[in-house]
Amino acid sequence: MSPTPRIRLGMVGGGEGAFIGQVHRLAAALDGDFDLVCGAFSRDPDNNARTGAICGLAEERLYHDWQALLAGECALPIDRRMQLLVITTPNHLHVPIAEAALAAGFHVFSEKPAALSLAEAERLANTWRQHTGLFGLAHTYLGYPMVWQARAMIAAGTLGRLRKIHVEYPQGWLGDALEHQDNKQAGWRTDPALAGISGCMADIGTHAFGLAEFVSGQHISELCAALGSHVEGRRLDDDGDVLLRTVEGASGTLIASQISTGEENALKIRLYGEQGALEWHQMEPNSLIHRSRGEPLRVLRAGIDQPSLVPEARERLRLPGGHPEGYLEALGNLYRDFARAIRRGERGDVPGVPGMTSGLRGMAFIEAVTHSQAEGSRWVPLPAIDSTGATI
Amino acid sequence: MSPTPRIRLGMVGGGEGAFIGQVHRLAAALDGDFDLVCGAFSRDPDNNARTGAICGLAEERLYHDWQALLAGECALPIDRRMQLLVITTPNHLHVPIAEAALAAGFHVFSEKPAALSLAEAERLANTWRQHTGLFGLAHTYLGYPMVWQARAMIAAGTLGRLRKIHVEYPQGWLGDALEHQDNKQAGWRTDPALAGISGCMADIGTHAFGLAEFVSGQHISELCAALGSHVEGRRLDDDGDVLLRTVEGASGTLIASQISTGEENALKIRLYGEQGALEWHQMEPNSLIHRSRGEPLRVLRAGIDQPSLVPEARERLRLPGGHPEGYLEALGNLYRDFARAIRRGERGDVPGVPGMTSGLRGMAFIEAVTHSQAEGSRWVPLPAIDSTGATI
Amino acid sequence: MSPTPRIRLGMVGGGEGAFIGQVHRLAAALDGDFDLVCGAFSRDPDNNARTGAICGLAEERLYHDWQALLAGECALPIDRRMQLLVITTPNHLHVPIAEAALAAGFHVFSEKPAALSLAEAERLANTWRQHTGLFGLAHTYLGYPMVWQARAMIAAGTLGRLRKIHVEYPQGWLGDALEHQDNKQAGWRTDPALAGISGCMADIGTHAFGLAEFVSGQHISELCAALGSHVEGRRLDDDGDVLLRTVEGASGTLIASQISTGEENALKIRLYGEQGALEWHQMEPNSLIHRSRGEPLRVLRAGIDQPSLVPEARERLRLPGGHPEGYLEALGNLYRDFARAIRRGERGDVPGVPGMTSGLRGMAFIEAVTHSQAEGSRWVPLPAIDSTGATI
Amino acid sequence: MSPTPRIRLGMVGGGEGAFIGQVHRLAAALDGDFDLVCGAFSRDPDNNARTGAICGLAEERLYHDWQALLAGECALPIDRRMQLLVITTPNHLHVPIAEAALAAGFHVFSEKPAALSLAEAERLANTWRQHTGLFGLAHTYLGYPMVWQARAMIAAGTLGRLRKIHVEYPQGWLGDALEHQDNKQAGWRTDPALAGISGCMADIGTHAFGLAEFVSGQHISELCAALGSHVEGRRLDDDGDVLLRTVEGASGTLIASQISTGEENALKIRLYGEQGALEWHQMEPNSLIHRSRGEPLRVLRAGIDQPSLVPEARERLRLPGGHPEGYLEALGNLYRDFARAIRRGERGDVPGVPGMTSGLRGMAFIEAVTHSQAEGSRWVPLPAIDSTGATI
Repeated sequence: MSPTPRIRLGMVGGGEGAFIGQVHRLAAALDGDFDLVCGAFSRDPDNNARTGAICGLAEERLYHDWQALLAGECALPIDRRMQLLVITTPNHLHVPIAEAALAAGFHVFSEKPAALSLAEAERLANTWRQHTGLFGLAHTYLGYPMVWQARAMIAAGTLGRLRKIHVEYPQGWLGDALEHQDNKQAGWRTDPALAGISGCMADIGTHAFGLAEFVSGQHISELCAALGSHVEGRRLDDDGDVLLRTVEGASGTLIASQISTGEENALKIRLYGEQGALEWHQMEPNSLIHRSRGEPLRVLRAGIDQPSLVPEARERLRLPGGHPEGYLEALGNLYRDFARAIRRGERGDVPGVPGMTSGLRGMAFIEAVTHSQAEGSRWVPLPAIDSTGATI
Repeated sequence: MSPTPRIRLGMVGGGEGAFIGQVHRLAAALDGDFDLVCGAFSRDPDNNARTGAICGLAEERLYHDWQALLAGECALPIDRRMQLLVITTPNHLHVPIAEAALAAGFHVFSEKPAALSLAEAERLANTWRQHTGLFGLAHTYLGYPMVWQARAMIAAGTLGRLRKIHVEYPQGWLGDALEHQDNKQAGWRTDPALAGISGCMADIGTHAFGLAEFVSGQHISELCAALGSHVEGRRLDDDGDVLLRTVEGASGTLIASQISTGEENALKIRLYGEQGALEWHQMEPNSLIHRSRGEPLRVLRAGIDQPSLVPEARERLRLPGGHPEGYLEALGNLYRDFARAIRRGERGDVPGVPGMTSGLRGMAFIEAVTHSQAEGSRWVPLPAIDSTGATI
Repeated sequence: MSPTPRIRLGMVGGGEGAFIGQVHRLAAALDGDFDLVCGAFSRDPDNNARTGAICGLAEERLYHDWQALLAGECALPIDRRMQLLVITTPNHLHVPIAEAALAAGFHVFSEKPAALSLAEAERLANTWRQHTGLFGLAHTYLGYPMVWQARAMIAAGTLGRLRKIHVEYPQGWLGDALEHQDNKQAGWRTDPALAGISGCMADIGTHAFGLAEFVSGQHISELCAALGSHVEGRRLDDDGDVLLRTVEGASGTLIASQISTGEENALKIRLYGEQGALEWHQMEPNSLIHRSRGEPLRVLRAGIDQPSLVPEARERLRLPGGHPEGYLEALGNLYRDFARAIRRGERGDVPGVPGMTSGLRGMAFIEAVTHSQAEGSRWVPLPAIDSTGATI
Repeated sequence: MSPTPRIRLGMVGGGEGAFIGQVHRLAAALDGDFDLVCGAFSRDPDNNARTGAICGLAEERLYHDWQALLAGECALPIDRRMQLLVITTPNHLHVPIAEAALAAGFHVFSEKPAALSLAEAERLANTWRQHTGLFGLAHTYLGYPMVWQARAMIAAGTLGRLRKIHVEYPQGWLGDALEHQDNKQAGWRTDPALAGISGCMADIGTHAFGLAEFVSGQHISELCAALGSHVEGRRLDDDGDVLLRTVEGASGTLIASQISTGEENALKIRLYGEQGALEWHQMEPNSLIHRSRGEPLRVLRAGIDQPSLVPEARERLRLPGGHPEGYLEALGNLYRDFARAIRRGERGDVPGVPGMTSGLRGMAFIEAVTHSQAEGSRWVPLPAIDSTGATI
């Protein structure tokens, strides 16, 4: 038996101080499937150098920008060259880098949202369809085992026909004008040139949207959004409440906020069907609350030894019950699935990893909520698109 | 010191089997302020007789209908006659009985909603203004001590300017077509002739609405409602999601549902201000969660010995911390405040007890949500009314 | 159908300011089974008068001490005379009053502990056996519906053979030397002349002990206790940790403390059997956690409409699920059961109400823990006594 | 800036199917400080080969037993040779391997307990003192950030003088006779030849003990233990309740159980001081409950962005508040601290990592509880030892 070689990873963005870069490196390291071999972490040369050293990169694989990285890696022999490029830049660079990387023959794992606009995402989808590289989107929350458990239970009809979906994602960190206090994270997220047409909805509303569609197995067809911007001078939404309906006949609400004072990262979803209901909280991710008509509430718990879990959940766990797994393990699950797809030489969507459909639908969601808001918070349709271009 | 005489209580509705009648009798008994002296509990003579006996009524004070009750009591000498009439009938009788009782010189404590329509509620308000009887509405949840604590903290500016209000009231008991299974509670609540133009929103949406306005100290000025009816053949809404805005500049959501499978009575409110946030759950009513910018979350706890509570909260408690108080005690608080107002000979609104303003605003809310729904879930204004007729 | 007359209640102790007197009055009032007709509330004439007025007592039924009360009531005609005497004095008066009241033909409902010593409790038991009056002990926690649910599930074998019992009762209010700060509650509880040979163990350890025996259906046969007194100058225990074993073969721990800083009244019990486990918290009394081997945890919830509850639990509830009931309702349940027994003319133990067996066993527990402590915290047996004098 | 080279890791034990081996590999990988370069994972050659392949080991670095591993690695040049050996075998091999590895100049990170007996642990300590290799013990729970927060708050006097320590560790997985059902984990843990003189107390009681001493900063000086063995034919304890006292004057309880049906891994500690109290649950590790006299309860939350955390806690976190970290991250913290000490060329105890003192005290604890049990559950002293041999 010969050892499985590690997949060679490159990274753009994620220099020291950018939370998300370190998160990706930790998650990719977890299962030993990847070696970080190259990077262009920051336009600040000092930061770039420091991050490269921290990551143990050889000097010649540390690049000053993403164009140099792609060029440099392409010049290397195929068995040394980076295989998967992780994009953790602000939003406006997602598509340019992803397109160039796909065109150069690399696989791409990008932070969300996929693009600045639906049109740009569709262009990316076209590029992707013309090349063999895989494309994944870092919707970390879709890597949580109990999210898969919920999805599987609903798909199996455990709740009966779904009636209601309530998803919410309150954070409080943008309650103040951090963008004027030299906070980089706040800076680009509230700048239309870097973040796109939406702030909160693009940043975390898409997570809530993606979670709702993923767990329910349904597709949101119309929505009515009331977005707000609560801080003097802020140019993008920092909060929003949305009514929604699905193609399949459910209705509900989506709340996303970055000005919910004191909230940390309280993504939560509840789904009610004719026969039962499920409730999941990202901040206590190892529990899944299951209500059934006329039965005591049950709490399903994560753990490789838990007989009540479906295989999709169990194979995304590493530890027995009572040993909490968290956010890094969830993102690690996406990396693990990505590694498996690369090794198997898969094409198209990466099983287990949110991909181009997520990207397109997320952009459609962002456009729909901002469109609804611009029209006085009236109902607007959400186009029925997916990665194939077919109607859903 | 001579003993304080008890206030003589009468009741219409609430015969054996009707949950709410027994609830009122228990709550009224709690502090020893009232004696139930007469009643017309049920149109079913057997039920009426049984309930009378259970309540220890003298036979001559048990009446076969509310008209007989009012006539009979008026015929008694003033010092034996009923003083306060409790109305726990289905909705369509609230106003007829209340008007007659007020006109006959009695005080009235009515179940909510106040009326079948805003117009009917305004007629009632007129009647009330022309007589001396007090009028209260059984919004039990406004009797909870920690609700008063929340209101006081917000009024004192503890949260800073309020930005968001999220209130929800999920129940699951009407997920099935109970109205076709001989369930009386479900029967009248889903019958437009008895319940009015709304089911869920009239029954529990008004509670959520009243709680939101009471705790926030703000007034909802516009809303956009998506109501649903999820059971074959049901004629009224059993669920609804509402976007809202207040006169004072906050926005948020109101969710009320009777088809949220497995939920009991999960009324919950969250309010976010610039400096802090509060969260309260009716099912764990003795805790109030307080978040502050940059501070660890705090849990304020009920208890007459808790130094962090305001007087408005403390005087609505009977026990030291750790001795749970609940729903009956909350309703008991409304009765206690009503008794005090009667003894003091108050006029107008009863301090501490939701009254005509609550009644009018609740009806305006019901009309607004049904109106919004009828117009394709568009935004509609909520009239700025209160018990004085003045603009709020 | 003629109305059921109320039972005439008298009270000794419980003057204004003594928490427990008001608690008894509220609980007795709840279901309308009792009228408070007489009292000797305080040796302070002003307090006594004020309390009498608050309670609406006729002046001639307000007595200056318990001897006068018994004499006065005996002089009244049988149909006006008090029927049940509630004793809410400090511990040292429990037996003298109870004996005199039983001898005079009254029923007695006494605060716990039953006596100052096991010998005194046995004397009381003898007196009780020689008269027809009923005797109950205010172990309020045994009135909680979910405690009955737990007991019934264990009796039915749901957990299999019981292996472990862990009960704890942490409070924090005596962490300071309140007895030197003019706190009456603290004063008598820490005074051996008034409280007996134990402080914390007599005051709340007995509750934990009684709960453990009641829910498990087992009898503690030996224990090893480490008691402590943590405040300068305090003469009785304010805290203790106990190892225990039962006749039936289970083992476990009992913790009671009044110096657990910040704890309110956190009585909690867990029981583990071969097949399952139960967990109940007094501060969230409407939930009962049920674990089973290989199954997700279930949360049984209080509510007259909850199909998973046994009749013993359901008949101790007044409200549907989601309407929290609390401490007063639990004590009200004991009063309701007492009223039923009086009306039926029962003899011996009052079904549903802790009685002489609880009293004797509680005193045996107090003596055992203090004896164990005195002997260097070694194991000591607990005598196998009950109200019949028979071996358990 | 040149990249930091990774530390070369070897592993004995932890073949496929042994939970703990994979746990160590994941935790060591997390921060990119280590490369697993060699191993002797299983005496079963197939398992050994499979595990080696999974781990990506070169064939020549996969050894058939630990003796071969030490010999093979010593034969390699110093810059290729393993630096740190991780021992994840059953207990009886801990000391033989650790001694040989230390003697051969390697650093050692061993699973707990350190040894089979206190005498064996003392022998190991002697060996360790004579060599330069570092020694760490995998008390994973001491890697949790909020455990460090608790320890720092207590050390800073936030709680005032400590009065009570209650620690418990209930698991349920050994409620059945798994050792007769071909469960390897259960097999060796219940076999005195492989596990030593204790089952439950050695396996998880030591975790509870270590946590209590670490967080409190105190030393347990005496204890009284009641151990049990609840499954037919089981030869070691599977459960135990312990009373304890510390040198510094606190008292309390320690409960450890593997037959608490339905419990997962519910390690929990509560500490009560004169001014405040702390409570931490391993299964919700990102919260720390802080009670203060007369103040509302506060919940301190994990997160690199949480201003209320001490540096010792913050530097053990990787993510902002609301992104849950868990068990692997806790063990990863021990690895990170170990890596730092190796790189700095430290001697003696590894800052941040439980070491020889933990090993000795854990063994003293095991001997004390089994001794107490053997003597009829009487009080026995715990020797005042630490890694220096000095009296504590």
